[in-house]
Amino acid sequence: KPKDISEADFANYFCTYGYLYHQKDMLEDQDRMTAYYNAVKMNPSQFEDKVVLDVGTGSGILAIWAAQAGAKHVYAVEATFMATHARKLIEANGLKDKITVIQASIEDAELPEKVDVIISEWMGYFLLRESMFDSVIVARDKWMKPGGAMYPSHATMSLSLIKTHQALKKVQDMQESLQVWDGFIETTKENYGVDMSALTSEYEAEQEDFFMNTSQWVDIHPSQELCAPFVLKEFDLNTATLEDIEKISCEFKLKMLGGAMQQQGAGAFAGWFDVKFAGSKENPAENVVPLTTAPNANGATHWGQQAFYVHPEISTSNGNIVRGTLQMVRKKTNKRLMEVKISWEQAKEEGEKDGHAKTTLAQKAKMWHIE
Amino acid sequence: KPKDISEADFANYFCTYGYLYHQKDMLEDQDRMTAYYNAVKMNPSQFEDKVVLDVGTGSGILAIWAAQAGAKHVYAVEATFMATHARKLIEANGLKDKITVIQASIEDAELPEKVDVIISEWMGYFLLRESMFDSVIVARDKWMKPGGAMYPSHATMSLSLIKTHQALKKVQDMQESLQVWDGFIETTKENYGVDMSALTSEYEAEQEDFFMNTSQWVDIHPSQELCAPFVLKEFDLNTATLEDIEKISCEFKLKMLGGAMQQQGAGAFAGWFDVKFAGSKENPAENVVPLTTAPNANGATHWGQQAFYVHPEISTSNGNIVRGTLQMVRKKTNKRLMEVKISWEQAKEEGEKDGHAKTTLAQKAKMWHIE
Ligand SMILES: Nc1ncnc2c1ncn2[C@@H]1O[C@H](CSCC[C@H](N)C(=O)O)[C@@H](O)[C@H]1O
Ligand SMILES: Nc1ncnc2c1ncn2[C@@H]1O[C@H](CSCC[C@H](N)C(=O)O)[C@@H](O)[C@H]1O
Repeated sequence: KPKDISEADFANYFCTYGYLYHQKDMLEDQDRMTAYYNAVKMNPSQFEDKVVLDVGTGSGILAIWAAQAGAKHVYAVEATFMATHARKLIEANGLKDKITVIQASIEDAELPEKVDVIISEWMGYFLLRESMFDSVIVARDKWMKPGGAMYPSHATMSLSLIKTHQALKKVQDMQESLQVWDGFIETTKENYGVDMSALTSEYEAEQEDFFMNTSQWVDIHPSQELCAPFVLKEFDLNTATLEDIEKISCEFKLKMLGGAMQQQGAGAFAGWFDVKFAGSKENPAENVVPLTTAPNANGATHWGQQAFYVHPEISTSNGNIVRGTLQMVRKKTNKRLMEVKISWEQAKEEGEKDGHAKTTLAQKAKMWHIE
Repeated sequence: KPKDISEADFANYFCTYGYLYHQKDMLEDQDRMTAYYNAVKMNPSQFEDKVVLDVGTGSGILAIWAAQAGAKHVYAVEATFMATHARKLIEANGLKDKITVIQASIEDAELPEKVDVIISEWMGYFLLRESMFDSVIVARDKWMKPGGAMYPSHATMSLSLIKTHQALKKVQDMQESLQVWDGFIETTKENYGVDMSALTSEYEAEQEDFFMNTSQWVDIHPSQELCAPFVLKEFDLNTATLEDIEKISCEFKLKMLGGAMQQQGAGAFAGWFDVKFAGSKENPAENVVPLTTAPNANGATHWGQQAFYVHPEISTSNGNIVRGTLQMVRKKTNKRLMEVKISWEQAKEEGEKDGHAKTTLAQKAKMWHIE
């Protein structure tokens, strides 16, 4: 464990990255792999003879591609023991002289020179979970030459509404669990002479938090989407600051699709992200490569999407417009986990010909954790 | 989080005890509950007018029983936020004046007086996982009056051999996983130009560790037992020291049962524990109450048993005696997890009439983690 990483952060966050099993999960994500591969290989002039930094190299894969693309030198920094495996892999692929693996946190790593390009795969669920971009910012501001380029260079966060039976399922699971609790109260009283019912509201709160207020990894089929996704946020990763990502607060407006969809209620908000590899203003990519984690009929990337369940459903009969605010902050006890608050209201957007004012209906707000 | 508990220990260990959901798992374990309940209620003279300390009170259940049994006063110490729930439960059960809940680590807690009895439920898998008895020792040596009594007062660890298909199943799962790896190597080479085969032995080692070298929670049916269990270790908890539990090393001798059993190989060593509530020499319990976690046809306690898989099986055709040494030490990076090493050899114990010397066959040794 690098000294500047806290024990708790190492135990909670870094630890799993030390397993090849977990690195393999990422290396098997074809959308992810293809995007990074193409970003490097379809933009050779961005890598040829350039000095490259791979922030969090893991198995070393991105560093290897950069070296294969003709980089002058690649610095591959990795906090966990995985660095040892990366070193071995790099040697076996004949790139020992081109890549220097440094086992350290990027915050603490010393490079012998500044770099032209930073490549990193730092994205977490709904883009910002894991807060690893913090470390990429540190790397960029400390080690990137003016006019250098970030790979990826841009990111967006999107929000939508989906139909899903899971919201109801969750409610049922919770109710079942609360029934078990009632039985438990009786048993404990009868057999062991202690009345635990004083803790019922605490238990309910805990269960509600678990079942209803924790967002969930989902693989949404496009047919579940009830509206066109709304782009909440766009980041230029060449310039984004810690302030930009630490807390986000954005307004949104979702318009339910017409037709058959109209009959369906929405059981969840859904969030995901896109990034693209476009280089920087001074060093634009020849071929801009996108990577999306949006709902896909062929199945999700390993990031899936995040579902924020709503119960009762958001019914289209209350109006075809859902507008509001999404705020995301970090969990106080663990900066790598998130709290999301969505406040929304529904409105009817009338057809143009009758020209009625919009009617606003019930206002709601809810909090979720991204665990 | 109490200040003297490290962040990592809090994140890895204490955290889950902060959930009622987890406390409930323990409160629903009828064997556990009945044993502690009877230990208190069937030994009223040990609790009446006594000052009691409950180390790690959790929901407060043991403190409540002690107070109901007529304790003069109970100090209930709990490191996590669960202390708040315990306080509420105690109040609702009308015992506010009899029990003082202290939210602190026991190492740091200040009691206004010394105590006659310490009650605590500190046992982990195979008795010592979690290393919580360390804290009970601290409490005992700091707060117990001479001649006081520990509840529980004695513990044993037992070892046996079992027949199980799981060992083979694990081998097959591992082989399957290694086949997936081979496919992954090909894909990565073909699609992304990187040969990952240099990491195959590392991946194999990781998978072997996961599938074969990690002990597992099991609910053994008595019919699986291939020999009479061997008591590895006995602890008098009134006097046991940190040294006694930090590292253990014990010899064992297991004799395979005759008859049909003889035809079966053993797929695993199995370990479990028993405790009993017998009080101390100065204050013996009137009614000694046992709590066993041994294989039970009615199903296991929440501790189950720990299976240490062996492949290939230990075959009875190599002799009906399995003797050896079991050593258990703590994991270097986390004192609450264990490493178990068993070295064994097989021998034939001949019938008395032919009087042959014992023949020793292959010697083996293997390490497992208790995670
Ligand atoms: N501050 C930091 N310093 C160094 N490494 C870090 C870091 N934060 C995260 N990491 C590492 O970054 C990696 C992110 S996962 C991506 C791995 C690899 N680049 C790939 O694309 O397959 C993990 O291995 C993690 O251990
Ligand atoms: N050093 C320590 N100081 C205070 N509490 C501790 C502790 N080590 C463990 N604990 C607490 O001890 C409890 C063990 S579980 C047993 C809970 C309860 N006595 C019951 O029998 O149901 C947990 O709640 C844990 O948080």
